[in-house]
Amino acid sequence: MSNKRPIGVFDSGIGGLTVVKSIMQKLPHENIVYFGDIARLPYGTKSVATIRKFAEQTVRFLVQHNVKAIVIACNTISAVAKDEVIKLAGNIPVLDVISSGSVASSNGNNIGIIATPATVNSNAYPNSILRLNNTVKISQAACTLFVPLIEEGYINHPALDLIAKEYLSPMNEIDTLVLGCTHYPIIKNTIRKIVGENVNIIDPADKTSDDLVTNLTKLDLINTSLDKPVYEFYVTEISPKFNSIGEMFLNTKLSTPQLVSLD
Amino acid sequence: MSNKRPIGVFDSGIGGLTVVKSIMQKLPHENIVYFGDIARLPYGTKSVATIRKFAEQTVRFLVQHNVKAIVIACNTISAVAKDEVIKLAGNIPVLDVISSGSVASSNGNNIGIIATPATVNSNAYPNSILRLNNTVKISQAACTLFVPLIEEGYINHPALDLIAKEYLSPMNEIDTLVLGCTHYPIIKNTIRKIVGENVNIIDPADKTSDDLVTNLTKLDLINTSLDKPVYEFYVTEISPKFNSIGEMFLNTKLSTPQLVSLD
Repeated sequence: MSNKRPIGVFDSGIGGLTVVKSIMQKLPHENIVYFGDIARLPYGTKSVATIRKFAEQTVRFLVQHNVKAIVIACNTISAVAKDEVIKLAGNIPVLDVISSGSVASSNGNNIGIIATPATVNSNAYPNSILRLNNTVKISQAACTLFVPLIEEGYINHPALDLIAKEYLSPMNEIDTLVLGCTHYPIIKNTIRKIVGENVNIIDPADKTSDDLVTNLTKLDLINTSLDKPVYEFYVTEISPKFNSIGEMFLNTKLSTPQLVSLD
Repeated sequence: MSNKRPIGVFDSGIGGLTVVKSIMQKLPHENIVYFGDIARLPYGTKSVATIRKFAEQTVRFLVQHNVKAIVIACNTISAVAKDEVIKLAGNIPVLDVISSGSVASSNGNNIGIIATPATVNSNAYPNSILRLNNTVKISQAACTLFVPLIEEGYINHPALDLIAKEYLSPMNEIDTLVLGCTHYPIIKNTIRKIVGENVNIIDPADKTSDDLVTNLTKLDLINTSLDKPVYEFYVTEISPKFNSIGEMFLNTKLSTPQLVSLD
């Protein structure tokens, strides 16, 4: 009965929907509650104390929605507020993109990380990977233009190719590449074209949903009902971008999200 | 004596420095105080009440610095808070990019306006131009990627050409093009290449400094001293971007700006 409880996924905005997409594919019978704090994004430029407060408000919201697992689908929150989320979640399992992405990439030798400037400056991925394997070589690139290009729909555009080449060219010796921003799986094909077939591209969104399957299985929480799953989307600001970009990310029609306030 | 008082120029961020550059060129002996509210940008997504409050705080700051003219070098503030600025400024003359840009473009027949999504959605330029000439045809394009491309230094890059072509191609019948964002003068050459020589490109930054010259002359406020001018830059957050982008905009080395708080 309790296995029908939804999985809670949250992000400061829209990017976390790539994690939702991966969960939908791997666990097609699970109900999902998504929370995107659109009104208060971007988190990357805010103080640690503020991000922790926002994360705690969100976790309370998800717990009220009776979630059986919590997925932090945001690099900034994963980097600075995971402990606070775990504490508030009690015995609800917590997964996050940085932990899953780091474990999956840590067997590389020469690891490249591409992310937003805020994530790069936080050193969240290098710190997390080096805790697992302190012999790896790590380089990072802040790919500032990728999020605006993706959100504007420049997904299969020659301008994206040119800009991606510029960002990735200093990483010509890597064997592993971490997509350290939840938007980037959308342009994985472009990135693959540039880095070639021999680089192991790690998509933390995908790895997080793998870890979610493992966790729910171990805890015997998989929803075995074959009912059509219910997907609920909550946002703190109604933006037409949520649907247009969300549909591009999820590759499916979205209903209008529900507006909530956490303040 | 009082003519040595500085000109106050303000913006939510860095873009207003293109107005400063134009003032420096046309009035090379004037002292300038620049204020950029980096900590609270972007203004474009904030409520009208909030923007007015921020503008009022800034005007008080500039008045305390004994400015002899106030230049609103920000489209958002020009659009929603000009009356509040004028009221607080008392007998100090106030100039703004939208008024100057609109007057200069209003003798066109088919006017294109390119700007950020916030400025486009505000309809500030069409409303202002139509008040001056209600027979013109006006079209707008939100060029979302221009600001991030410029701030990342993709000024003379083929990716910018490709993206600019896409934004400007629906405007193939215009005779006048308004650069409705203070960042855009930086890529005027690229825009010129695409729209051709027959389109009258209106740079409101440039028109505002023309109007400033006219105003100061009429009020007998031109600084006739030949002292080296003093340029002071104040920001609400120290960001390395201010200097790197500011130097690109002003084409000269900048000293570190001074940190102030208006809250």
